[in-house]
Amino acid sequence: MKLATLKAGGRDGTLVVVSKDLTRCRAVPGIAPTLQQALDGWTEVAPKLEAVSRALNADAASGEPFDPAQAASPLPRAYQWADGSAYVNHVELVRKARGADMPPSFWTDPLMYQGCSDAFLGPCDPIPVADEAFGIDFESEIAVITGDVPMGVSADAARGHIRLLMLVNDVSLRNLIPAELAKGFGFFQSKPASSFSPVAVTPDELGGAWDGGKVNLPLVTHLNGALFGRPDAGVDMTFDFPTLVAHAAKTRVLAAGSIIGSGTVSNKLDGGPGKPVGQGGVGYSCLAEIRTIETIETGKPQTPFMRFGDRVRIEMFDGAGDSVFGAIDQPVVQHRGQN
Amino acid sequence: MKLATLKAGGRDGTLVVVSKDLTRCRAVPGIAPTLQQALDGWTEVAPKLEAVSRALNADAASGEPFDPAQAASPLPRAYQWADGSAYVNHVELVRKARGADMPPSFWTDPLMYQGCSDAFLGPCDPIPVADEAFGIDFESEIAVITGDVPMGVSADAARGHIRLLMLVNDVSLRNLIPAELAKGFGFFQSKPASSFSPVAVTPDELGGAWDGGKVNLPLVTHLNGALFGRPDAGVDMTFDFPTLVAHAAKTRVLAAGSIIGSGTVSNKLDGGPGKPVGQGGVGYSCLAEIRTIETIETGKPQTPFMRFGDRVRIEMFDGAGDSVFGAIDQPVVQHRGQN
Repeated sequence: MKLATLKAGGRDGTLVVVSKDLTRCRAVPGIAPTLQQALDGWTEVAPKLEAVSRALNADAASGEPFDPAQAASPLPRAYQWADGSAYVNHVELVRKARGADMPPSFWTDPLMYQGCSDAFLGPCDPIPVADEAFGIDFESEIAVITGDVPMGVSADAARGHIRLLMLVNDVSLRNLIPAELAKGFGFFQSKPASSFSPVAVTPDELGGAWDGGKVNLPLVTHLNGALFGRPDAGVDMTFDFPTLVAHAAKTRVLAAGSIIGSGTVSNKLDGGPGKPVGQGGVGYSCLAEIRTIETIETGKPQTPFMRFGDRVRIEMFDGAGDSVFGAIDQPVVQHRGQN
Repeated sequence: MKLATLKAGGRDGTLVVVSKDLTRCRAVPGIAPTLQQALDGWTEVAPKLEAVSRALNADAASGEPFDPAQAASPLPRAYQWADGSAYVNHVELVRKARGADMPPSFWTDPLMYQGCSDAFLGPCDPIPVADEAFGIDFESEIAVITGDVPMGVSADAARGHIRLLMLVNDVSLRNLIPAELAKGFGFFQSKPASSFSPVAVTPDELGGAWDGGKVNLPLVTHLNGALFGRPDAGVDMTFDFPTLVAHAAKTRVLAAGSIIGSGTVSNKLDGGPGKPVGQGGVGYSCLAEIRTIETIETGKPQTPFMRFGDRVRIEMFDGAGDSVFGAIDQPVVQHRGQN
């Protein structure tokens, strides 16, 4: 089934079941007013939501129109948002551009950081940034939402705790990153609020494209209307989702509604870095990566970071060409400072 | 007023108003069933809770007995938990022990990391750890809970967004830290679930001990019944709470219910490192600090990390000797692995 959250209804919005074609929806206040409440009681709640989903899909005249612009992120606020860096190719490239070797352990021990989760942007909300000089970038990713995960779970057992999947725009402020990472405590100001796709889906919605660990479909990113990347999310993912969930739960539980991200989707080409779409490659899922390759090839980046008014669109299509999650589609806007 | 959350009532527990002497409490389902709901609508809700508090304190026969062992952390799960390192003295010492200089920017730009917030331990809950070899440590700290904080807020304006204060035990697994920080993304597995004091209080409960930025009272830590530290939380705090909140909100909003921590409370002595309580000093707020000083003085640490069965108690007393927040009082227990 497909689930979304309309903004109307307060800080946690209103849970709706969405039709497979993303055109219609139905609120379910008698079952679960919010997605977090559905996740809190998933075992009892999910079958009831599935019944609504079946009915909604069976009658094309039922439900209300679904407008992604009225949607919040599926969890408008979450108790945990941890983002991995599972496409190690991406990490290796970025480090290469600054002349840093990558420790061999990066291929066996996932990188992961905790992001801000108290106020996500909606999938069509503007991205507010105070200053273009921060180096505004998107990161196209996939994330899972978990149920309750016990401490010390194995990757095999973690698979069964994955409830939903969705897309992510992990907004990054690149020029704030070097000083922040140099302090040793990881990202903070350099990773402002993320946004997620209008719709979160149960793994079965992906059919054969979900192999229990990865999503084997291209993740399509457009920048200002032009195709920027379509790497396959099932290729070069060194750590699959169950492995990422197990990593996150090694020393603590993960409570229902925890979001675990894949990191920027990135594909190699013939064992080396990928090529831009314009040169016949699958392109990229963030500006930092193309700038890295430009730096390696020409000594400096050519592609600028995002400017106010620029727009990024992130989407994924199934084998029949239908959008699975709806689109993240966001302009960057200037935020006027508070005091 | 003083607020707490009883475990009964589900994942978010049951909000209660607690008497000033911490002996009695009253649930307020008609005002706000949970602390998060109170924070979500603070402007309207707080005056009603204050009225309950006044009535509860006026009639010593009213309310139900308050038992900290039945309490969850005031927010059993939160949408944001970010911990600073405001006592820069502590950071300088830890770095000195490993022969690392501290960048001068550490005195002007706060260190802060995002911790797991989806499932806090209760104030009297055991701390489950799989292996003593992880290097089990406590960190005694103070934290604030904010209301809605706008992006780019100044430190001056941030002061008005502080709703509640409480104590923290920021449990740390020291032997997992070096490898984790070496990866560059900050803490993750090395910082398992934290716990907070039984009671959170509005700033006015601190009287003159709250100067609008800091809590000017000793933070008292006992290890296995013996006094381990009583550094003054108002001394050597390089970044006060409004500054920490403004740092956290530089590039994003903070939503109501965000928790911002001070980091380990630490006092210098005569410009140098403090002394153990047994040597006439004010002691420490974590084992890492005394081990660091032992390393500087004798070449290696003498004090072991916590073992299964060890117990830490963290509390703060006002000028009259009364406990302000109640005590965090937790044993460490062995967690048996899942699969």
